[in-house]
Parts: sequence; structure tokens; C-alpha cells
Amino acid sequence: MSEKIKIALIGLGTVGTGVARVILEESERLTRRCGKQIELAKVVVRDKKRPRMIDLPEEIVTDSLQEVLDDKSISLAVQLIGGIHPAKEYMEQLLDSGKDVVSANKALLCEHGSELFSRAREQGRSIAFEAAVAGGIPIIHVLNQAMSGNQITSIEAILNGTSNFILSEMFLGSRDYEDVLQEAQELGYAEADPTLDVDGTDAAQKLCLLTQLACGTKVSLDQFPRQGIDTLALDDLLYADELGYSVRLLAVTRISNNQLEMHVQPTLVQLDKPLAQVNGAYNMIALEGDIVGKTWYSGLGAGQNPTASAVISDLVDTVAGRNKLIFPFMDLWDSQQPLEVLPAEKIRRRYYMRFNVLDQPHVFAEMADILGRNQISLASIIQHETPETGESNTDEQQVVPVVIMTHLTTEGQIQAADKELSELKSLLPNRVIMPVLD
Amino acid sequence: MSEKIKIALIGLGTVGTGVARVILEESERLTRRCGKQIELAKVVVRDKKRPRMIDLPEEIVTDSLQEVLDDKSISLAVQLIGGIHPAKEYMEQLLDSGKDVVSANKALLCEHGSELFSRAREQGRSIAFEAAVAGGIPIIHVLNQAMSGNQITSIEAILNGTSNFILSEMFLGSRDYEDVLQEAQELGYAEADPTLDVDGTDAAQKLCLLTQLACGTKVSLDQFPRQGIDTLALDDLLYADELGYSVRLLAVTRISNNQLEMHVQPTLVQLDKPLAQVNGAYNMIALEGDIVGKTWYSGLGAGQNPTASAVISDLVDTVAGRNKLIFPFMDLWDSQQPLEVLPAEKIRRRYYMRFNVLDQPHVFAEMADILGRNQISLASIIQHETPETGESNTDEQQVVPVVIMTHLTTEGQIQAADKELSELKSLLPNRVIMPVLD
Repeated sequence: MSEKIKIALIGLGTVGTGVARVILEESERLTRRCGKQIELAKVVVRDKKRPRMIDLPEEIVTDSLQEVLDDKSISLAVQLIGGIHPAKEYMEQLLDSGKDVVSANKALLCEHGSELFSRAREQGRSIAFEAAVAGGIPIIHVLNQAMSGNQITSIEAILNGTSNFILSEMFLGSRDYEDVLQEAQELGYAEADPTLDVDGTDAAQKLCLLTQLACGTKVSLDQFPRQGIDTLALDDLLYADELGYSVRLLAVTRISNNQLEMHVQPTLVQLDKPLAQVNGAYNMIALEGDIVGKTWYSGLGAGQNPTASAVISDLVDTVAGRNKLIFPFMDLWDSQQPLEVLPAEKIRRRYYMRFNVLDQPHVFAEMADILGRNQISLASIIQHETPETGESNTDEQQVVPVVIMTHLTTEGQIQAADKELSELKSLLPNRVIMPVLD
Repeated sequence: MSEKIKIALIGLGTVGTGVARVILEESERLTRRCGKQIELAKVVVRDKKRPRMIDLPEEIVTDSLQEVLDDKSISLAVQLIGGIHPAKEYMEQLLDSGKDVVSANKALLCEHGSELFSRAREQGRSIAFEAAVAGGIPIIHVLNQAMSGNQITSIEAILNGTSNFILSEMFLGSRDYEDVLQEAQELGYAEADPTLDVDGTDAAQKLCLLTQLACGTKVSLDQFPRQGIDTLALDDLLYADELGYSVRLLAVTRISNNQLEMHVQPTLVQLDKPLAQVNGAYNMIALEGDIVGKTWYSGLGAGQNPTASAVISDLVDTVAGRNKLIFPFMDLWDSQQPLEVLPAEKIRRRYYMRFNVLDQPHVFAEMADILGRNQISLASIIQHETPETGESNTDEQQVVPVVIMTHLTTEGQIQAADKELSELKSLLPNRVIMPVLD
């Protein structure tokens, strides 16, 4: 008869329900994987009366976190509630009452991870968070253990499944952004308020966590450019394809000369690269280490079961005593020399630009002049003779799309040119500018 | 000042040299990852006089394993020698003398893993072997830890970089097998004697290890069909492409109803699947779990640095004390009920068949009759009007290639039909038959 470990589950939403189900239905499997019997001793919910998607013994369901804090026989809490408050206060109380914590809350760890990790270390407890980044892809395990001989030199990743679903469905089905977004909401891939997914915030929080883990330096959202997919049109995906690229919401960190280059932006990726071939709600992370070279990891980035799988792996690691031997060595936050984040304006890449211009003399000369004065040189230009998607402005003057691929230039020069271009009367305001992944 | 751990390195070949270099050059990094200083106390080589690719203090180099066995201050041995003997005896002696072992020897673990693991458990030691399968891809970590909530339901993998390099170079460069094999040997991707790589043995040994880890049941090479790439012609890759497939040497295990379906064969993979898009010496493993769904892992499967990276991750895990908490829970060999391996003749798939036939009346009728009597129904047929690669036989009769795609059938029916086909005088002996991955 193996030792019994009592655990609490805080939060019974989609992921919490999935985790509870695996603990209850696969208890023999989990015992085999960690040598101990995992007993779900308490489940803390906000509203005990709300209907649940899982049958639980009534006596373990409570709306009081205090019951868990007071129960010294519970040594581990799986905390699956989103947002910053009260998630932060809950985690602090759980750690202070001597419990190891498993969390999936990327926003909380991105913003307050440094304090929470210090607190856990002071209390001799551990925090595990495989489920906070890229759901079913075990990227935290990979960074903490499999890459331990390496300095990570680059992370190139699709970290938001909602955005990837929208981009790939737009392209594959020749559909508009709004149309696909609505389908994503119906399928449960996108929230009722999809802002944090489609504006790049979610991917940026995950990139911060990965970068902090890979480099041991604290980075925050305001230190790097962040742009979502909500300004893209189907046309951009079609032009990109014509040029030999796929558009992906890419989260990138490059580490060189003690400097970090970071950005989260819709990005042109060459069609033959693995990142260009990821469709639907999948995530992919391309990780480069100085010893191992380049490696790729792909799987579903969200959803009840993939995320539950990640939570369970942390739970099993913690119960087996492994996480106590992983957590102290995470290269997180203040464990190393802080690295400088390259200022946005110095990031050097090639760019895709689409302008909708009024079809009148001198427009192109004015545009080219602005780009030239900003040291931006052009690699290729597409202006189709019969624009299929020409719009008309109020004066019935014809509008034609012009697509430009630049040679290497900087985000600073692009921004300066964009500001001047915005003042051209012959350019419509809906410009799209995206970097290229090289 | 952190605690010092003395280790020994047994074998200083390509990978051993890479491992020694990381230990010596990145000692500060490794200490940060496991909290202890790793000291390379002994390096056992066969011939002390042989020139080395790395500078080592003379006093640590020895040709005597006994020196390591006798040194009680050495608690861990990284054993990097290939083959079965004396690797097996060395590992037994190392375990018996109380040392944890890190190994990259897939052949040894595939054949004698069961005994060696029992021995390690009796001695209270651990064996780690991330580097034994798929080099830089941390698939052993993934199976042992990240997937611990899952029952693995399928493994579909490219596990031999040499074969994948040859297949992708043949196709991309329209080159012959022999030509590319020679280049692979010059580049160091293929051994002077490439037999075990190109005949599927290497991939099959790796598949055995992964399957044993995923299912806890012992499987051996003689239990499943194994076929290499050495019988394929460029034509087969071109026909496959015409049909919408790429040819990959695929190692597959499927688990259902307590039964294992296993095979290592050149296989047609639909062009849009990630496995079809892996070129060069890369490996990829598609792993499906009953909770997480499908996940993919890719990286270099061999070579000095990717393999050294895997060895170092095991070394760090062992020194940090983590492997002692992983090893006992590996679902290896005798830990679970043995699963039955589906007999080869019952494996059910679609097939690609290429025949070179004499262009004379009735040939097709004879072929079709044989297939029909064996319950094999045809899904599509390609016979080009002007065969670009038509060969001539001695009678100057024209030879035309005929390519057939079948509907679902069994390996048994295919083998029976193939035997009958081999007796047809109008068919040349160089038939090619490959299954399709569905």
C-alpha cells in the first residue's frame, strides 16, 4: 500500500475540471508514476451551488480557501484560477501555509513571479507552472531539465492558439478576420472578449516567462514591441503567400552579446520553415541552444485536456519529490546578471509593408522618397495591374494596394518612415507593416 | 562553495569528446543548473597514446576501468562506448561498484536493458539514457515526466538521421541512392559500414526503447516487420510525390486494446503532415497521449553536440538527485502487464506497390488477378505513357514501371500476393512495396 498524499484543487473551471477528472479516473496510473496515492482532499469553488461538469463527493467541495490553509495534512495545492487578484493573495497564503503550488496562471507569474518565487524559496516550497505556457507542449520541462547543458540562444514561437487558428483559417478558407474570429468564439478557441489573445498580450506574457526561464533575467511587457493580428486583412496573407511566406503571430527572443532582442508581432515566415506550417489552434516553439542546435516542439496550446496533461505532469513531479530538486535551479529572474533588452528602434529586420494608395500621379514617388530618406531600401514591389480588392474612396478615386518588401532596416527607421507616410494625403490610413523572420 | 561531485567518463569517441568539452568549458553553467560542482575525475580510454581532440590533464586519463571501479569517491560514470561487449560488462561493474550510470548505448539497452535496470535497482543506483534515442530531442524526459498523466497511444517517428538525410537528398536533388549514401559518408552522417542505419535496425532498436518506456512491456526486434531504405529507387520518391506523399523511414507503435502494432518501414506520409516535412539529418517524433492529444518533437538525432547535450542533461539530473526520483517510476519492461504484439500479417494499412513489368499482353491481367485473389483492391494506378526511366531487358523488350495504390489490406495479404507476383515471368524482380501512414 503506497503512501497517500492529500492535495487541494483551487478553481473548478475548464482546466480544473479536466485535472479533477484525471486524478479521480486515473488514480492507479498516477500512483504508478510517482509511487504515491494522490487523494483529492478539497476542491475550492467560488459558488458551491453552481452546476459542475464532474461528479465530486460533496464533502470535499468547499467555498473556503481557509479550510485548505488550515488543513496541515494537505501538502500541495493545484491553483487554477485566472487573473491577478485574488490569485496572487491565494498563492501567497498557500505558500505561507506550507503547501507546494502547481499553477497555470501565466499573467500572474509574468507580473509577480519574482516575488512569488522568492516567497516559495523562503518557505522551502516549490511552484510548478508547465501549464502556464503552451498547454500540451512540455516546454518548461524542456528548459528546466533537457536543455540544462545549453545556453538558450533563441526562442521563436507560436504561443497563442487563437491567433494561429484565425490566421490559418483566414488563409486556407479565404475568409475575413471577423468571420473567422466569430467561428473561433463559437468553437471555444477564443474568449467572448478576445482582446488579450488577438492583440498579442497573451503571447507576450508567455514569451516573458520563457525568456526569464532561459536567461535568468527579468523582462516585462513594456520592454519590447507587441502587436496583434487584429489589424491584418486577408489580402496581407495572400500577398505574403505570393511572396513565399506565411503570416504567423510570432513571439521571438534572441540572445547574443548579453543582449536580448524581443518582439511579439505578426511576422512573415518562409513557407518551408516548420513555424509556417503550423495550422489551427496548435502552438510551436523553436528553441535553439548553443550545444544542441535547433529543436522544435509542437502541440495544442490550450484546451481542457492538453492543459490538464501539463498540470498533472507538475503534480506528479511535485508529489514524487522531483520539483523540489528542479525549482531551486530554475534560471528565473534574479539568479543571473540582468541582460539588457535591445531598444525597439534598434531591432534590425526585413519588413513587409502594404499601403492602400490613391491611384494618382506622384504617389509612388512621394512614398519612395520618404522610405529613401529613412534609409529604407526596397527589395521588391507588388502592384497588380487590376487590383482585385480595390476600394473606392468618397471621391470615387481608385484605390490600389501596393506591397513592398524592404532590405534589412531597423524598427526605428520603419517607425520614422511610417510617421511621415501617415501624413501623406494620397495614402489611406489602413497601412500594414510586418517584419520578416530570417 | 558548492559541493564537488567526482565523475568518470568511459569512452572518448566523438560524443565523449563533446561531453568532456562541455564539462570542462561550461563548469560554471553546470554548477548553476544542479547546485554542485562537477569534476571530471577520470577518463577511461582504450589507448592512452592515441591523439585526442581535446586537452585533458594527463593524470585523469587512464586505460583502466578498474581505477574507476576502485575509486569510491567517484559516484557517477558517463559510459559512452558502443556495441554490446564489453559495454554490458562495464555497466554491470560500474553499477556493482555503486555508481550511477549515464549511457547513450541504444543497442545495449534494447537488448539487455531489462537485466541492467534490475541490477541498477538492486544496487540502489540509476541509469539515464536520454542520448540513446533521437540525440538532441529530449524524448526520454518527455515520456518519463511530461507525459506522466497520459497513456501513450501512438508513436510515429523518424529515428534514423542517416536514412532521412538520404531520402530527402535523393528527392530534393533528384539523385540516386548510392550517390547520396556516399555523400552522407563523406559528411560523417553515415558510418563506413552503414548497414544498421539504412536497413532499419538502428531505428527499430530506438523504437523498442521508446515503446518499452511508453508501455512498460518488453518488445524485441524479431516481433515486428523491419525494412530499410536500401531497396528504394529515386523513382519511388517521385511517384510518391506525384501521389501526394513523401517517403520517410518511419518507426511506428500504436497501442490499443492491450495490443501493440509495431513496424519500421519506408512509408508514404501525406505531404502536409509534419513528418513529411522533415528533411536532412533531423529526427521527429509524433507522440500521442490519451489526455494531451498529439505532440511533435524535432531536432538533430545524432552528431557530437546534440548527443552531448542529451548526455549532459542526464548528468545534471543525476547529480541534482532528480534521476533517483525518475528511474524507479520508468514504465520499463516488467513494471506492467505484458502487451501482445500484433502479428505482422494482421497489420492493416494501405500500400504503395511499384512493379517493373515487361510491356507485353496480359501482364496487367495476371497482376490484377493475383492481387484480386488475395483480396487486395486497387485505389489508383499510375502507368505513364512514355516511361522516362524505362529499362530494357536482355531481349530488348521494353520494361515499364507500374505503380499501384491499394485500399486497406493486411501485411499478410500483401506478402502472399508478393510471393505469387515473384513467380510471374513478366515482372522483373526489383519490386518495391511500402505501406502508407494514415
